[in-house]
Amino acid sequence: MTAHGVDEAVASAEKAFLEYRRAEPRARAELLDAIADEIVAAGDELLATADSETALGLPRLTSERGRTVLQLRLFATVVREGSWVDARIDTVDTARTPPKPDVRRMLIPIGPVAVFAASNFPLAFSVAGGDTASALAAGNPVVVKAHPAHPQTSDRVAAAVRAAVDRCGFPSGTFALVHGASPDVGTALVKHPLTRAVGFTGSLRAGRALFDAAAGRAEPIPVFAEMGSTNPVFLLPGALEQQGAAIAAALADSATLGVGQFCTKPGLVLGVTGATWDQFAGAFAQRIEAKPSARMLYRELAARFSEGVEKLERTHGVARLGRPRQPALPAEPGPPLVSAVAWQVEASHFLQTPSLREELFGPSTILIRASDADDLVEAARSLDGQLTAAVYGTERDLASFSTLIDVLGRKVGRVVFNGVPTGVEVGPAMNHGGPYPATTDVRTTSVGTAAILRFARPLCYQDAPEPMLPAELRNRNARGIWRLIDNRYTRDDVAPAV
Amino acid sequence: MTAHGVDEAVASAEKAFLEYRRAEPRARAELLDAIADEIVAAGDELLATADSETALGLPRLTSERGRTVLQLRLFATVVREGSWVDARIDTVDTARTPPKPDVRRMLIPIGPVAVFAASNFPLAFSVAGGDTASALAAGNPVVVKAHPAHPQTSDRVAAAVRAAVDRCGFPSGTFALVHGASPDVGTALVKHPLTRAVGFTGSLRAGRALFDAAAGRAEPIPVFAEMGSTNPVFLLPGALEQQGAAIAAALADSATLGVGQFCTKPGLVLGVTGATWDQFAGAFAQRIEAKPSARMLYRELAARFSEGVEKLERTHGVARLGRPRQPALPAEPGPPLVSAVAWQVEASHFLQTPSLREELFGPSTILIRASDADDLVEAARSLDGQLTAAVYGTERDLASFSTLIDVLGRKVGRVVFNGVPTGVEVGPAMNHGGPYPATTDVRTTSVGTAAILRFARPLCYQDAPEPMLPAELRNRNARGIWRLIDNRYTRDDVAPAV
Repeated sequence: MTAHGVDEAVASAEKAFLEYRRAEPRARAELLDAIADEIVAAGDELLATADSETALGLPRLTSERGRTVLQLRLFATVVREGSWVDARIDTVDTARTPPKPDVRRMLIPIGPVAVFAASNFPLAFSVAGGDTASALAAGNPVVVKAHPAHPQTSDRVAAAVRAAVDRCGFPSGTFALVHGASPDVGTALVKHPLTRAVGFTGSLRAGRALFDAAAGRAEPIPVFAEMGSTNPVFLLPGALEQQGAAIAAALADSATLGVGQFCTKPGLVLGVTGATWDQFAGAFAQRIEAKPSARMLYRELAARFSEGVEKLERTHGVARLGRPRQPALPAEPGPPLVSAVAWQVEASHFLQTPSLREELFGPSTILIRASDADDLVEAARSLDGQLTAAVYGTERDLASFSTLIDVLGRKVGRVVFNGVPTGVEVGPAMNHGGPYPATTDVRTTSVGTAAILRFARPLCYQDAPEPMLPAELRNRNARGIWRLIDNRYTRDDVAPAV
Repeated sequence: MTAHGVDEAVASAEKAFLEYRRAEPRARAELLDAIADEIVAAGDELLATADSETALGLPRLTSERGRTVLQLRLFATVVREGSWVDARIDTVDTARTPPKPDVRRMLIPIGPVAVFAASNFPLAFSVAGGDTASALAAGNPVVVKAHPAHPQTSDRVAAAVRAAVDRCGFPSGTFALVHGASPDVGTALVKHPLTRAVGFTGSLRAGRALFDAAAGRAEPIPVFAEMGSTNPVFLLPGALEQQGAAIAAALADSATLGVGQFCTKPGLVLGVTGATWDQFAGAFAQRIEAKPSARMLYRELAARFSEGVEKLERTHGVARLGRPRQPALPAEPGPPLVSAVAWQVEASHFLQTPSLREELFGPSTILIRASDADDLVEAARSLDGQLTAAVYGTERDLASFSTLIDVLGRKVGRVVFNGVPTGVEVGPAMNHGGPYPATTDVRTTSVGTAAILRFARPLCYQDAPEPMLPAELRNRNARGIWRLIDNRYTRDDVAPAV
């Protein structure tokens, strides 16, 4: 794919937008459902293709397909219900001096959205993943940049989306897939004058480069880049005492799930020193050591992981837990096998070593031992923005660590209590986002129905005659949506003027 | 004011935030009301000070004070009512495999907000203006950068805000005012690591510079810059025929209101050539010529206006309507008087001359004569992003110009029907924003209650014990707010688990 190909895709998207944005919500919902149907119809062959390209395994990919389909159907229900447009109506008051105009506003789509597929979710955060679903739901055409690590999976899913677009009678430009290993293709997509917004899931380096490119445009556009984090887990004393072994098992599973290739992988685990901590650390290390070596998504990622591991080996104050293992040799061409690894460092060292706050993508977790409760809170304060933080604590723990909870509330997008950070539920209340460098826009989420707000913006009509208004803003509430009329939430019609 | 002073103000704001963000909504609402009370209590002296610094006149400043007070009180009602936090609750389902967690999210404040005061609204878009009101309402401390054109007014209003902060028992860092004629002070404020967002009203040049500074930070922050526009007005044939003279009078008043120093001043007026157009143009020019010369806000602004007028004089195809007048000589030291001016250009020339699409701040309006309806739509297509567009049309006009309305809907934040663009109603449905270069963030408004969304972000709690949850997310809906529970809007409590 060349810059010319990108230009063609975005120009077609812009053309399709003129029609797609006018589609009834019902028709947009049907498209989302049709995409879900086509993905299901692609059957086991799609999963086999994805497995051959990612080595994620069929059970995981089956469940990821379920999530992908669920996301599409969930956005379809949001679009059908319709209240997401945040319709607001301030009625006229001709008796006032000066007369108060009739003012009505709602959210509308913005135009072509560029979506950069993730390597670690070949289905759910890729061609027909969350960003594509929310952008289409809001009424925007989508141009996806495929991830080079799974081109065939991308093509297969793109064929499913195209079939659905076609079946629903929308213009072919409503959706396009572009490939390109060179960063030039992605840059051309972000810099294209008709591109209105960017969704991205990947590394901090790549996400920031796209953000900078978008901010440097003559007309800047928003970039919603989800760039991962270390997802610190705090183990409070009472919880450690009561269920240290169970926590060790749960965290070791979470840290190695999908070969540690989740943006919510617990990369840091923090607690206060003592006998229960040492027991936990021992149990955790044992669990990690027992995990079989596994294949990462692609060769470069595995190489980066190995470099990160070597760097940690050389980092002052960082001790590898358990016996060091030889890196496994690749059994065949393709990404090498990697072994999970656990480390330990004192909180005082951690505070002095900024590199330990960087995400290492893959099955690596650093345990951080604080000297006391204050030291633990100090370590929390030193953290950058995160997607999640998790806290294991008894009721008593939580009551006495309220400062810690408060500090975390400013650092993260989601606080998990007595559970692991992996497993991001898809629903209206989910927030998968967080302060930089976890994302480039803390105001939005990339998972859950609130993600639709990324790709919409308000338009306001003043004193518009009824026929000029979209259905959502007319006096009669034909769609039955929730509206804010004269500052009151209601599903009523606008009362006729007296 | 130096960079050191900025550092002190932002550091104090951050400290105050730790307390202010925890305040009950009721207490925040009381602060907003108290600021309104203190501004009213500042009485005629405040208006006299503002008039001496801006020459806007007491009637206008009296009404602007009313607007300022209204904004503060309106945000107080929004905060008291409380539903703006967009609370969402997805309840637990332990029967599902894997178990569905309890997920709850709401909007929370973000931290110190930097507000850049506008020159043209010394009260309503300044020290205690819309941005300050919405940022405080959302729970954030505010550091205002005063506009150098009205330092005493700024100080007087700042004293009112400080008195209110003090009376309500909030930390003094909750609000600060910084002065500084040099751009360094503003840059230091935007670059300060603890600043979380920026509100700005002013020129494209200054707004873009702040946007670039914020985007270039190690940790980028959002800039909500409202940078004005040309606010095109479209006069459709039937309306021109039926009420051309009345429209000419209304537009001439709108274009010269406040010496043309509104961001919604109609800078471009477009219609189709013919006898009724020429009659309108003649009537408009006459009205403009009859307007007395007036003093602009400050000397540099008047100088920029005069330069702009001279540039238009020299622009090929642009004709000045009516007899040219000598620029009035300044009667006394201070900003020189300026005369309102009207121009006319053919749409074909307009299309070829990008400089005519730039805003000229002050009482200047360009009439654009299209050869036919298609030419008019072509001119609309060539426009940049705008805060507003206005359309005068009969029912029949509007029906036959649906393409025009459609084109405008993509270009602007607000479409006004049969009315002038000046006069931005403050209410829940207002949208004062628009695509770049009107603003740097099309997703938000700087007027109306939806502005509170600028300075907030979601935080999500997973499986949190009740005592860890903020009041808005607890099972019992003690605040009586609207919440989305299991994807259904309700003011009910969360039903107890069975």
